[in-house]
This record gives sequence, C-alpha cells and structure tokens, in this order.
Amino acid sequence: MSRALEGIRVVDLSHVLAAPITSMFMADLGAEVIHVEPPRGDDAREFGPFVGEAGKNRSGYFISLNRNKKSMVLDLRKEAGKKILRQLIEVSDVLLENYRPTTMRKLGFSWEEIQEINPRIIYASISGFGQYSLPGYDSRPSYDMVAQGYSGLMSITGPEGGQPCRVGSSVGDIFSGHQAAIGILAALIHREKSGKGQHYDGAMVDGLFAVLENAVVRHTVNGEIPGPLGSRHPSITPFQSFKTKDSWIIAAIGNDVLWARFCEVIGREDLTGDPRFRTNRLRTEHVKELVPIISEEISKKTTKEWAELFAGADLPFSPVNSIKDICADPHIRYRNMLVEIEQPRVGRMTIAGSPIYLSETPGEVYAPAPLLGQHTEEILRNILNYSQIEIDRLKQEGTISGEV
Amino acid sequence: MSRALEGIRVVDLSHVLAAPITSMFMADLGAEVIHVEPPRGDDAREFGPFVGEAGKNRSGYFISLNRNKKSMVLDLRKEAGKKILRQLIEVSDVLLENYRPTTMRKLGFSWEEIQEINPRIIYASISGFGQYSLPGYDSRPSYDMVAQGYSGLMSITGPEGGQPCRVGSSVGDIFSGHQAAIGILAALIHREKSGKGQHYDGAMVDGLFAVLENAVVRHTVNGEIPGPLGSRHPSITPFQSFKTKDSWIIAAIGNDVLWARFCEVIGREDLTGDPRFRTNRLRTEHVKELVPIISEEISKKTTKEWAELFAGADLPFSPVNSIKDICADPHIRYRNMLVEIEQPRVGRMTIAGSPIYLSETPGEVYAPAPLLGQHTEEILRNILNYSQIEIDRLKQEGTISGEV
Repeated sequence: MSRALEGIRVVDLSHVLAAPITSMFMADLGAEVIHVEPPRGDDAREFGPFVGEAGKNRSGYFISLNRNKKSMVLDLRKEAGKKILRQLIEVSDVLLENYRPTTMRKLGFSWEEIQEINPRIIYASISGFGQYSLPGYDSRPSYDMVAQGYSGLMSITGPEGGQPCRVGSSVGDIFSGHQAAIGILAALIHREKSGKGQHYDGAMVDGLFAVLENAVVRHTVNGEIPGPLGSRHPSITPFQSFKTKDSWIIAAIGNDVLWARFCEVIGREDLTGDPRFRTNRLRTEHVKELVPIISEEISKKTTKEWAELFAGADLPFSPVNSIKDICADPHIRYRNMLVEIEQPRVGRMTIAGSPIYLSETPGEVYAPAPLLGQHTEEILRNILNYSQIEIDRLKQEGTISGEV
Repeated sequence: MSRALEGIRVVDLSHVLAAPITSMFMADLGAEVIHVEPPRGDDAREFGPFVGEAGKNRSGYFISLNRNKKSMVLDLRKEAGKKILRQLIEVSDVLLENYRPTTMRKLGFSWEEIQEINPRIIYASISGFGQYSLPGYDSRPSYDMVAQGYSGLMSITGPEGGQPCRVGSSVGDIFSGHQAAIGILAALIHREKSGKGQHYDGAMVDGLFAVLENAVVRHTVNGEIPGPLGSRHPSITPFQSFKTKDSWIIAAIGNDVLWARFCEVIGREDLTGDPRFRTNRLRTEHVKELVPIISEEISKKTTKEWAELFAGADLPFSPVNSIKDICADPHIRYRNMLVEIEQPRVGRMTIAGSPIYLSETPGEVYAPAPLLGQHTEEILRNILNYSQIEIDRLKQEGTISGEV
C-alpha cells in the first residue's frame, strides 16, 4: 500500500511536543522525516516515563512521538553543522522547527535566508507568540502551560466556581502541531500551482485562542466572561456528567428530540411539557433548576443500569473512562489505536496509533523511534553524497554524532 | 493574493462543530465550501449566544464557525434532493459529513455508492466511533462530551484528587475536525499522483485518545492510571500555576538550565544544589516536597512583580488570563486573531480569526456566515446549470429553500 505523503522530505528541527506532533502526522502518512537533533538530543528524551534496560534510560514519551522518523545529530553551533543543514534544506520540501523565533534568526536561518537556499521549501515555525509579533514577544519563551494560561483556555477549565485547571494533556502544543500540519499540507497543494514555497508562522497562543469556540463570541457579543463549569456545557443542556449509584455517567442531550426521549427514560415525562425546559435555549437559561431534578433521578441506578437504558433509547451517553479503562477498551483495540512496536534497546512496547484513517493511505506506525543520531551517517551518505572520509572528519570534529 | 485551496470544491453536509471546523479551515484557506443544510437548518443555528435584531435570533456560535461558507438547503428525504446532492458530488473534490455512519448509508450515500458517482472524490466522515467499528458502535450517537468522557481525557482533567472536569471548549469535536482536515489535504496530495479519491473515517474518540500523549505510555509502560493534577504537568516540574500575593501565575520550567535561573529569581539558589531537585526527573519524583517550597516564595510578591522578574530572567511564564483579558490582549489584536465581520441581519460583530499564518496564502476571514439556504439558487444555477423553471418547481415541492 502506498502512503499519501511518500516522496515528501521534511527536515525536522523540532523538539519536545508541538512541532514533533506535526512531523509525527507527516511521518505516519509516509513523509521522510529527518529529525535533526543537537548533540545532547531532543529535550523530550529526558521526559518520563522511562523504559528499556540499563536503568530504564529511554523516554517512552519521546518514543511515542517520534515513531517513523529518522534521527540525525548536527551541532549547529559549528559552521560545518550549518553547512550540512543548508544542504539538507536544498533537497527537502519542508523545514520544521519550534525554537524561539530569535534562535533561528541568530543561527542564520531566517525565512529570508532559507528562501535563498531553496525557494520551493515550506518553512514551518511554531512558537509561543509567533514570528510576526509585538516587539519582545518573539523572544518570549513558551511552553504548553504558558499557552494554556495565556490563551484563556485555563480560565474556562475546572470545577464551577473553583480554581482554573490545566487540560490533562498538552493541548497548547498539540493543537498548534495539528494546525501546522494543515498549513504545511495546504502550502504543498498551493506549491503545485505556484511553484513557490512559503513560511508558516504558527503561534501556540493563537492556536488555542482559535479553538475557544463559543467562549469568544459570548464575550464579544454579550460581554460575558465565561468561567469554568466543571463538566457542564455552557450552551447545551443537559450536557454533563451525573453521579450514579456507583460512579459517573455523561448524558449529552444535544437537541429537543433527544430531550423528550431522555425525560421518558428517566421517568420524568412531565418535564417535557414544563415551559422552563421546552427548548435547549430555555433549558440552558434554567440550568440551575433543571440539574438537581435530573441528578436526583440519576442517583437511583448504577452506571451500568443507566448505560443500558440510554443505549436502548439511542441517547448519547458515556461512562467517564479512566486511562486504564480506555487502554483496555474493545473499540480502541478494534480501531488499532494502540499498536505494538519493537523498539531498539527497549523491546516490545505499546503506543497510541494514528487517528488518520484513510481508506487507501492510512496513517500508520511502520517503524520505531530512532536512537539519537541513528541515521546521521546514512543521511550524509545517501542523501547528501558525503564520502566516508568526510563523515569521519565531521565525527572527529564533533559536528555530527550518532548511536549505533 | 491567491488562496492555497482555491479551485477545491467541498460539499459540506456537516452540522454543529466537528466537521464544520474542518470546512472552516478549508474555507479560510480558499476552498469553495457549500454547506448543505436540511430545511430546519444546521442544529448549531439554535446554539447561543444569539445576536442580531428581531429578538436576537441569529446564533453567534454558528456565525463564528461558518464564516466564508455558502449555504444551500436540500431536503434529502426527497428523491429530488438526493439527485441534486449526487450532481454536486459529481463536480466536487471533497464530500464532508458528520452524521452517524448509519445515516449516510440509509440515505444511499455509502462510500461504495459515492465512489461510483465520483471516483476522484475525497469522502470525509467524522463520527463518534468511526465507520469501521465494532458491531453497534457505528449507530451510537456521540457528542463532544461523550468523546471527552469515553476517551479518558476527562479522567485526567480537573483538580488533583477531585472530580473529573470537561475541557472548557469542545476539544473532542475540534481535534477530530483538525484531523479530518489533515486527512483530506493528505488525500488531495495523494490524488495528484494516484488520480483516485478515498474515504477518511475519523472517530472523535480516537482523535482524543491520540492526543493523550504521556498518559497512554505511562499506562502501557508502567501500569500507572494517571488522574487529574489540577494545573500541574505529570512529568515536568515545576510546571504549574502558583498563587501570588494577588492572583495566579504560571511558571513553566522545562529544563535544568531554566531551573537554575528560576531558583535564582525566587531567591533560592540553594535548591539548585539539592540532590532531590537536580534534574527534571528528580524534581518530578520529589514534587510533593518541592511545590510547598516554591509556593511559599511565590506568595510573597504580586503577579505583576513576578511577571517582571520572570521576564527579566527570560523564564517561561504567564498570568492565567480570563476570556476578557485575552480578548483585550495586544498580542491577539496584533496577530489579527479577532476580526470584525459585517454579518447580514446582524451588523458588525467580532469573531476569532484563522490561526493558519501562511506568508503567501494565509487563512483569512473574507466573507460572513451565510443565511440559511442563501446560496441555494445560485449554486443550482451556476454550478449545476438548472433553469429558473426547474428551480421554481423544486422550491414549490419543498425540496429546496433559502432565505434571501
């Protein structure tokens, strides 16, 4: 089976999470991703959980994000390292990085300079506040947490009336990683017609701001300042978790047809006729009166009992699954969303699969994550036509390195 | 300025949020998106906040998601409506929908049938559990809340030791919307070589499972069951919000170099030498001892004072911004992440812009959201070459309609 992005080469200067998500999507879809790491390695190699023999010194975190990629170690503080990077840029379709904007400029790889090396390249940058930004913002260091706090997302996540919470996964990085993939692929499509590359300038703060959905319009339209609502949806009701006899169940009643059926299942057909609850808009206005009535009913049965009743009535519902529950879930297994890989120096391990289900060219995990600099020599030899003598000299100078 | 996806036509049967996010990205990038709505309209037209005159009867939520798109009303319960949809499919590049899998099959638009109409089309479906799924799962209704609960994301979001919380925006829908855009664009690139379309089968549950990042490996590697951690990161320390004298500030200390500088700024250089805190891995192991020490120091100054100190030391930090703060933020304004549109029947309103910053073909808001069926006649006339007599007959039969 062929892969969608076969033949596309990505020079990937990324680290940790945001841009590595972008190159993960591209590698899963068949692009050749060359992850260029500094001699000390991508910072993510130091993040837990750790696996493998010899003191469990391999990062499971790094492995899960860097499957399917190649690793090359280049010391970009050395002129010889920069020269190799320039040669890679010449023969690649995409250059990806998520350093601070000032870092790449200082290294001599601004968009102006890169265009001169290869005018057809798509240069994708992800940073906290963007390349094109207010004075000083381009040198501001950023992490997911910074974007979650700065963007406003944290202020609407958490218990109602309580302390703002971080989303349990690093969505500030991960959304901007998705958005960069969209930008790069759109730019590749455009290049077919224009023949020209371009610069993608992603900002993590913007990426999260763009997905606040109704919170933004509620403020711009009504001056509202949305706060955290626990598990409740701000404009759809009832749409939240309720405590059952033994745990929690989510009921997601998204329209009036479902509402009528829901009332029947919980034995409160009388609510359907109640003028306070007739439409979604009214139910949301009267949420404080409605939720105690429903909670009272839901507390009378177990999660399993309600699950059967809700399923029987074709209502949208879910238990609140733990990570253990979902990793053992038959749906996740059936959809191949957990895959086993044979990881060098580690052995068999299980990581999340690709959500990009394409019938002819699905995203796939087809190779493990690389050791640090595992492909340095191979890339110099096969892509850039370096001789073994040159390679040995670069190694001796410390410009390149690699585990074998 | 040209747009990246100019010349690509999308027939968009989507509703509410997941697939509308996909078509929003595509429309922002210049694709012609024809949002085909049932006579009662996309459900999102009933979701608040409401704007406009005549009883504030327009959904600001719908408007923010459907800018740049066209709207056509087709009654797909009628054979004549299906016929028009088939004709649209014949002349389009992408067909997008997020009904339950069984719905499209019942209507006669399974992937097998659509391929026969147009073998070059990319057919993208988003559903809760996927088209290819365990028996019964393909007819399961789903909403964002269901995916947040089912995927495990809710179980790791919320106060430490407390009740699981929903992420404050509908990330179950929004991630799968991003992923479908990635799948579609990759499939369009592949079609250049293969000449063939394919089916994208997105599942909201899979889409969220795929972004749980370290939570999954921590379980598969160590058998851990991660729970909610408030604002704290599970494997980077210190990386959370701390209470200042007057509010909250986030410190995101992602590596050992930053750690040394952070200790200096808070006046606790002694911590750098403490063997419990020497590396990120050690700090994470000893988080329960470390956080009280830091909290004590941070409580001594205001957020503004710490912000200046952290900025001076080039440390990653952020205040926890409210939605009001971020909507008034100079960075968001500078990056054009809030744009004003002139919306018919509403007037001027402000919505979030596009995060897809491409230097030559940026994502842009260039048109307001359509009235219900605003473009029905225009599309029949200009794209499908219907005569006015035919159009009038379809209108009379109730197959088509449209606000003008």
